[in-house]
Amino acid sequence: MLHSKLIRPESIVVVGGSDNIHSPGGRVLKNLIDHHFQGKLLVINPKKDVVQGITSYRDINDIPETDLAIIAIAAKYVPEAVKVLTQSKNTKGFIIFSAGFSEKDESGARLEKEVAGMIREAGGSLLGPNNIGLINKHYTGVFTTPIPRLDEKGVDFISGSGATAVFIIEAAKSMGLTFSSIYTVGNSAQIGVEEILEFLDHSFDLQKSSKVKLLYIESIKDPLKFLKHTSSLIRKGCKIAAIKAGSSEEGNRAASSHTGAIANSDVFVDTLFKKAGIIRCYGRNELITVAGILQQKESEGKNIAIITHAGGPAVMLTDVLSKNGLKIPQLKGKESEILLSQLFDGSSVSNPIDFLATGNAQQLEAIIEFCENSPEIDAMTVIFGSPGLTTVEDVYEVLDQKIRISKKPIYAVLPSVVNVKGEIDNFIKKGNIAFPDEVLFGSALAKVYNHTLLSQKTGDFDIGPSEEIRELINSHPEGYMPTEAAVRLLKLAGIKFATPHQVTSEAGLNKIMKSITFPVVLKVEGPLHKSDVGGVILNVSSQTELFDSFHKLMQIEGAVSVMIQPMINGKELFIGAKKEGNYPHVILCGLGGIFVEVLKDISTSMIPVSEEEALKMINDLKAYPILKGVRGQKGINIPAFADAIVKLSDLLMTVPEIAELDLNPLMATENDLIAVDVRIRLEKTETELQPAR
Amino acid sequence: MLHSKLIRPESIVVVGGSDNIHSPGGRVLKNLIDHHFQGKLLVINPKKDVVQGITSYRDINDIPETDLAIIAIAAKYVPEAVKVLTQSKNTKGFIIFSAGFSEKDESGARLEKEVAGMIREAGGSLLGPNNIGLINKHYTGVFTTPIPRLDEKGVDFISGSGATAVFIIEAAKSMGLTFSSIYTVGNSAQIGVEEILEFLDHSFDLQKSSKVKLLYIESIKDPLKFLKHTSSLIRKGCKIAAIKAGSSEEGNRAASSHTGAIANSDVFVDTLFKKAGIIRCYGRNELITVAGILQQKESEGKNIAIITHAGGPAVMLTDVLSKNGLKIPQLKGKESEILLSQLFDGSSVSNPIDFLATGNAQQLEAIIEFCENSPEIDAMTVIFGSPGLTTVEDVYEVLDQKIRISKKPIYAVLPSVVNVKGEIDNFIKKGNIAFPDEVLFGSALAKVYNHTLLSQKTGDFDIGPSEEIRELINSHPEGYMPTEAAVRLLKLAGIKFATPHQVTSEAGLNKIMKSITFPVVLKVEGPLHKSDVGGVILNVSSQTELFDSFHKLMQIEGAVSVMIQPMINGKELFIGAKKEGNYPHVILCGLGGIFVEVLKDISTSMIPVSEEEALKMINDLKAYPILKGVRGQKGINIPAFADAIVKLSDLLMTVPEIAELDLNPLMATENDLIAVDVRIRLEKTETELQPAR
Repeated sequence: MLHSKLIRPESIVVVGGSDNIHSPGGRVLKNLIDHHFQGKLLVINPKKDVVQGITSYRDINDIPETDLAIIAIAAKYVPEAVKVLTQSKNTKGFIIFSAGFSEKDESGARLEKEVAGMIREAGGSLLGPNNIGLINKHYTGVFTTPIPRLDEKGVDFISGSGATAVFIIEAAKSMGLTFSSIYTVGNSAQIGVEEILEFLDHSFDLQKSSKVKLLYIESIKDPLKFLKHTSSLIRKGCKIAAIKAGSSEEGNRAASSHTGAIANSDVFVDTLFKKAGIIRCYGRNELITVAGILQQKESEGKNIAIITHAGGPAVMLTDVLSKNGLKIPQLKGKESEILLSQLFDGSSVSNPIDFLATGNAQQLEAIIEFCENSPEIDAMTVIFGSPGLTTVEDVYEVLDQKIRISKKPIYAVLPSVVNVKGEIDNFIKKGNIAFPDEVLFGSALAKVYNHTLLSQKTGDFDIGPSEEIRELINSHPEGYMPTEAAVRLLKLAGIKFATPHQVTSEAGLNKIMKSITFPVVLKVEGPLHKSDVGGVILNVSSQTELFDSFHKLMQIEGAVSVMIQPMINGKELFIGAKKEGNYPHVILCGLGGIFVEVLKDISTSMIPVSEEEALKMINDLKAYPILKGVRGQKGINIPAFADAIVKLSDLLMTVPEIAELDLNPLMATENDLIAVDVRIRLEKTETELQPAR
Repeated sequence: MLHSKLIRPESIVVVGGSDNIHSPGGRVLKNLIDHHFQGKLLVINPKKDVVQGITSYRDINDIPETDLAIIAIAAKYVPEAVKVLTQSKNTKGFIIFSAGFSEKDESGARLEKEVAGMIREAGGSLLGPNNIGLINKHYTGVFTTPIPRLDEKGVDFISGSGATAVFIIEAAKSMGLTFSSIYTVGNSAQIGVEEILEFLDHSFDLQKSSKVKLLYIESIKDPLKFLKHTSSLIRKGCKIAAIKAGSSEEGNRAASSHTGAIANSDVFVDTLFKKAGIIRCYGRNELITVAGILQQKESEGKNIAIITHAGGPAVMLTDVLSKNGLKIPQLKGKESEILLSQLFDGSSVSNPIDFLATGNAQQLEAIIEFCENSPEIDAMTVIFGSPGLTTVEDVYEVLDQKIRISKKPIYAVLPSVVNVKGEIDNFIKKGNIAFPDEVLFGSALAKVYNHTLLSQKTGDFDIGPSEEIRELINSHPEGYMPTEAAVRLLKLAGIKFATPHQVTSEAGLNKIMKSITFPVVLKVEGPLHKSDVGGVILNVSSQTELFDSFHKLMQIEGAVSVMIQPMINGKELFIGAKKEGNYPHVILCGLGGIFVEVLKDISTSMIPVSEEEALKMINDLKAYPILKGVRGQKGINIPAFADAIVKLSDLLMTVPEIAELDLNPLMATENDLIAVDVRIRLEKTETELQPAR
């Protein structure tokens, strides 16, 4: 946890504070002074007794006990300063701006370890090094500008990159987004994004805390911790929007070279976010637009009224909203006719509600009241700019009042960023958000409104005979499990499998002949990619054909045996699972053949997968209509498909050694779902390899 | 064509000019004065002799002959003023700001018709009514602010909406986009977007004219004229980016209610744009970002160097570019090592090239020179902001110089819109473009770089026996053609069809028995949707089966006859054609079955379709790999597919009466492509219905 003295220090010393406000030590001091830090403020500067009007000590040994140190001196001097502060000044909070640590080279990394070690041993908390600091309501501990407007209901923002944080704060300013706190983690020598999330989670107060969190991150060191606290915050009523940069392979490489972290396939990040319920964003503008929407009242539905004095932007907004699944319901009936009579000739109330270039404040008021009372409308967007002739002060005044008192959210798109810049600034100063571009706003709105939170699977995972499963796993070494064992494992986990006969000789084939019902499928065992070597023969329907096929398969290079299974008809599905780094398994599913190989139509989820999550996975497939049944063709048993996914998830929760699993294909009919091929690869950590287990 | 006096008047009278600069007549006069109109300026104001220092006439009859009138009086007074101006003042150019015409009601529409009629008869040109005017290098004839920076190489901008034009100009300002001319058409009583495009096309001067055109439109009245001039401008070397609002069904309804125009399915607009080579945008921010990219040098390839002093934005930019098909090549080798040695420790040159927060102007210069000389790089993006400590003036100075002299395009992403606002403004004043958000920039860059221009089909359409075709069409009434006739038409057009036998009785069936090769397909004739009524029987392979099937089909309600065709195996494809309003036909193609019905995997093109366009259509299908052959399965004969599309296009060019055509399915193998079902609906205009033809 973060030490309370890092969060709420009663005294702060700026190590390296100076009069030069173009240096980090000078600027952070100025920021602390300008934004009225209420506690005791000290400076250490070997050449001065007073810096920016604040008492400065030439020797760090001379200062009194101090809660928090903000350190802005060259890296090589940092260990000595930290030593004194931890050992004799009872300092528990540390923010180290200095660069030249692990981000630079090996010797920097050693220095960082030394410093972090001293602070840890003293029971302190370290933010940084190589960051821009922290802002909260208690103090402004950053060396950058601008300092955003702070507000208890503003967003809590955690950034893995200092410069990016600055650019986000700058972009947020013109929109009116306010902040509650800002944390930048730099090299995360001790405190990373996960630890700050933990702190926000544990200190969350339903009444007082901000409900909107923003993240900019380039790597996730501890996915489970990250998931735990983001999930928890979201279930407590927060909304989290996040950028995880490096979402492409190329970007991933760039992020790794930037952070030194190991790159993870983006599918793991994506499913992690989905599981937690995080709204994923891909750029700064999108992030702050989403945040601006989240800061406002929550809507109860997806029916939007677009209120405008200019047709064009309303049409473009209608386009982007309706293409993304939101509704712009046509308004009809007596009430809307009464509204129309209050507007100038040529106005339209059918939604978009266009009250023309000459539309005024009174009319806007009437329109908003109409929408507030209309059961067909859940939220409003008002678009109002100015061609430069008249003022819009009275219109924005009405907008401000209505935003305050209306039960439904009202979003303000104010496009005239030049003509009425002053009026927009005024509107923002009253605590409002102004979106400049209706289409960027609209796609963010759709993202927020379409975001769904799925119930998570909790509690025990009932997978039946767990001791037998454990024994089976322990008795197999790393690598691919033999098919027979893999099938047994699946059956123990409750997944249906088309019972195979494994045959190695003609004698063996004769032995099982009686128990075979034609037609059957023959598959070679041994070669990894059976299809590629012609190792699968379908629809074998007579004894002669069976023997011929058997001999043919056994001649394939690497052939060890032949599996004989009943030929099952149905739609080909697949379920797979992958593991990477310290992330939980990701389960993938879809239709087989061209759907996965050509159309890349795959859904994913992170274990443990709940039934609701499994159904959502299936529902998200582009080919979903085919599974439901289309063009007179019967669909498949969707609950059985979801059930197999959940059962597989339960298995993976209890057998972390499964590094890779493929059920491909499963044959599905409207009644049944049965796996006909499986491949499982085990990977054991050193503990798991212990024979004693 | 636009009258030269509308474009380059030597005298202007502002009818309704006043001292009140918050009125259209006052503001346009101020704009004309402030921006130094070089000709003679007059005002008509019944109460003044001097307005804003300009001579004012109380009576319109007293003014001398005047080239251009800008009219800002109530609609009801406009006809009288226009009458005097056209009849006795030799006025040829008219801009009418006044509202209250066709956009308001029926009587307004009559007034508009009257005014436009007078101007047309006098051989004049009318822009408006209900618009905000026109800006070009000769005069500033708008009543709005801000007046953007004009520049011969700036963009020519045509807008169907005045307010939207203002908002676009405002948004463009902070980015540094300059304009060459701006036209707003209002109600388009005489001059619409098409007429301005025609003017820009005819007056285009390769040396002097701007090469970038922007459009904001809500309806296209004359698609063929629009296509002709946008195509022509683009083939002369221009780039055109355009928003056509109303791209969704809901938005289309909103646009129609706004413009009063008939709504067209968006697929027609989309294929029209594709055919012309217009870059389609969906929002103001996207439009100006694309324009900002188009205003710069053209790149010779898709390999981008990202140069940054902040990791985060570079990673996000890498993500958006690489996801959209651009390359961020890793840079290696001796040269890049030399470059690295010039940068501070911890920098990276592998691309993104990160020269750290402390990176300076000299280093940027070295990096840009390295990229300019690297054969692996086609274009550069420099991301450089400021956390607020130091100035960036010298860095932006280097950037400005390098943009000027470099052969490769260099794009500037300058995210610090607060901290170094002054420096960014300075950079822009030198004629540069500054993009504030790397991801919005990146997606626009990908859009521009991925845009391809296909060769158009020109000249004659060789469809063989055109007289026979004409005779066939003339001999059939409106509505669905009988299958036999439709098949004949296809064959005349050179499209292969599985020869059908049409049979109405058992006797008829006996008659053709000898010429049948089993297996065959039987299809009922009469009912429109054969499959839905069980009217298709596949794989009939014996005489007995044939008779049984024939009787079964003839019992279906509405059955007239049965078609018997050879059973052809292969992949099911479809080609269709639709016509709507005054647009040319759109041809659609794809794979049949679930590909079209579930996955909506359809490509479109507008006639006349060239071979290159047809191949692009096929290539754009998501299922393209299946057509090429995938997973060991053979593909189809793609040139034959393209050829069928081109032949169909040629047919449609000569037979405009075809309102709807479906070849579904065509059966495709690696060698052959053969249609097995066809439906053609004719629609005849009054002329076409003349028996004489």
